[in-house]
Amino acid sequence: MEELKDLSKLCIHTITTKPWNIEESARNFSKAGVKGITVWRDALDGRNIKQTGQLLREHDLTIVSLCRGGFFAHKELNKRKAAIDDNKRAIEEAAELGTSMIVLVCGADPAQSLEESRKQIHDGIAALIPDASAAGVKLTIEPLHPMYADARSAINTLSQANDMAEALHSEWVGVAVDVYHLWWDPSLETEIKRCGENRNLAAFHICDWKNPTADLLLDRGLMGEGCIPVKKIRSWVEAAGFNGFNEVEIFSNTYWNMDQSEFLNKIIKAYKENS
Amino acid sequence: MEELKDLSKLCIHTITTKPWNIEESARNFSKAGVKGITVWRDALDGRNIKQTGQLLREHDLTIVSLCRGGFFAHKELNKRKAAIDDNKRAIEEAAELGTSMIVLVCGADPAQSLEESRKQIHDGIAALIPDASAAGVKLTIEPLHPMYADARSAINTLSQANDMAEALHSEWVGVAVDVYHLWWDPSLETEIKRCGENRNLAAFHICDWKNPTADLLLDRGLMGEGCIPVKKIRSWVEAAGFNGFNEVEIFSNTYWNMDQSEFLNKIIKAYKENS
Repeated sequence: MEELKDLSKLCIHTITTKPWNIEESARNFSKAGVKGITVWRDALDGRNIKQTGQLLREHDLTIVSLCRGGFFAHKELNKRKAAIDDNKRAIEEAAELGTSMIVLVCGADPAQSLEESRKQIHDGIAALIPDASAAGVKLTIEPLHPMYADARSAINTLSQANDMAEALHSEWVGVAVDVYHLWWDPSLETEIKRCGENRNLAAFHICDWKNPTADLLLDRGLMGEGCIPVKKIRSWVEAAGFNGFNEVEIFSNTYWNMDQSEFLNKIIKAYKENS
Repeated sequence: MEELKDLSKLCIHTITTKPWNIEESARNFSKAGVKGITVWRDALDGRNIKQTGQLLREHDLTIVSLCRGGFFAHKELNKRKAAIDDNKRAIEEAAELGTSMIVLVCGADPAQSLEESRKQIHDGIAALIPDASAAGVKLTIEPLHPMYADARSAINTLSQANDMAEALHSEWVGVAVDVYHLWWDPSLETEIKRCGENRNLAAFHICDWKNPTADLLLDRGLMGEGCIPVKKIRSWVEAAGFNGFNEVEIFSNTYWNMDQSEFLNKIIKAYKENS
């Protein structure tokens, strides 16, 4: 596989450097030569979204996606309806911001079966396709690690995400491959190939799985720090035709407690050496 | 499915009531009408194993299995050899104790690929089959949740465990279905059926997945307390021909901090109502 010689495909999620507000992230990412940013919706709180998008572009940052929509699965109909409305707002926000993709954390309701949650996810995404098409925003299904099947996502393998994207069969629906969620899966290479062949491979997220991992949510590692074969998985993703950004998405109390400029240096080093 | 009207198929792991030593567990399980016990090796520390087995039988307890062998995957050859030796000792201990099954947590080494770890697991189990056969002890592969793929097991789905058991093709190799590890898998019903058809379904472990789960290891719930459809999975296991014990295996700081007699009452209630 090719080495990552420069930062032209490096994208960082705003949540990765959570202690910085979006203006600080934009300034610091840009100064360091980072070329992409994925914006979490909380980073836009209290801001004019169009102007924020303009600011990011002025820093020469491609806005890779808005993170995150989804959470379609609820036992109660009114909550499912509210989720659709919220996703419509997210589509509007993405369009205002000037990005062509929303990442979906699809949801799961522990009060009902996973099968039922999956049906509601399918129906939720289907209901949004007209809005997504009108806004030019792709809805990207991110399968989540099985440890989040209780309340975050009933889509827990790339096979399931592929099934759903193929069933929905729309150019406005895609799939995100996140190494943290999928690295353990013996069918990963096959499913990445399938995802590419069906033109659904829309995003690639990287970080690492630390051993030991201290927290189910907030202890992700930098690439190279754990046991995920990030380079190998990137080679599979690229062999499947993906040529978009490599997005660094890390939730970590350890790193959030660190000086964020120092952390950014570590991200760039880990990106060059271990991604 | 049939309701669990009595405790004739209830087995409890010694680790579930960890604050009790094995003599206290035997006395209290027996008094409560529990009919099976799975013994963790640490519970035998400093004891005469034959006499301990005799004591358990005197309390009218079936010794369902010895828990646990495995940990075959190591980058270093000397550690792999040491693991084989340790598993041979476990087989001897099982025979002395008077149980016909050892549960295997197969292992994974974060310093090598999962594929490599899986090969070593296969070879490790294959190397033990003569000893297992001579002792009359079945080696039971327990697939572990993908969140343990870093260092505990490279076998993370029932499909993988079935593959390996079928490849090893021995009456001395079986598979354990633990709802905690496998509940999220969309192919679970199919794979349980396959496991039964190939006569590999050797053990059934129950507990629940709490939402939220506070710890990757030590926050398992009682049946009914979380989102696992325990009754439904039990019906699949029984439809696949399994008629062994339902083994309650719970690691929980919360419950270990409770009065264990009170906890045992809760286990029995949860078993009758939600299993």
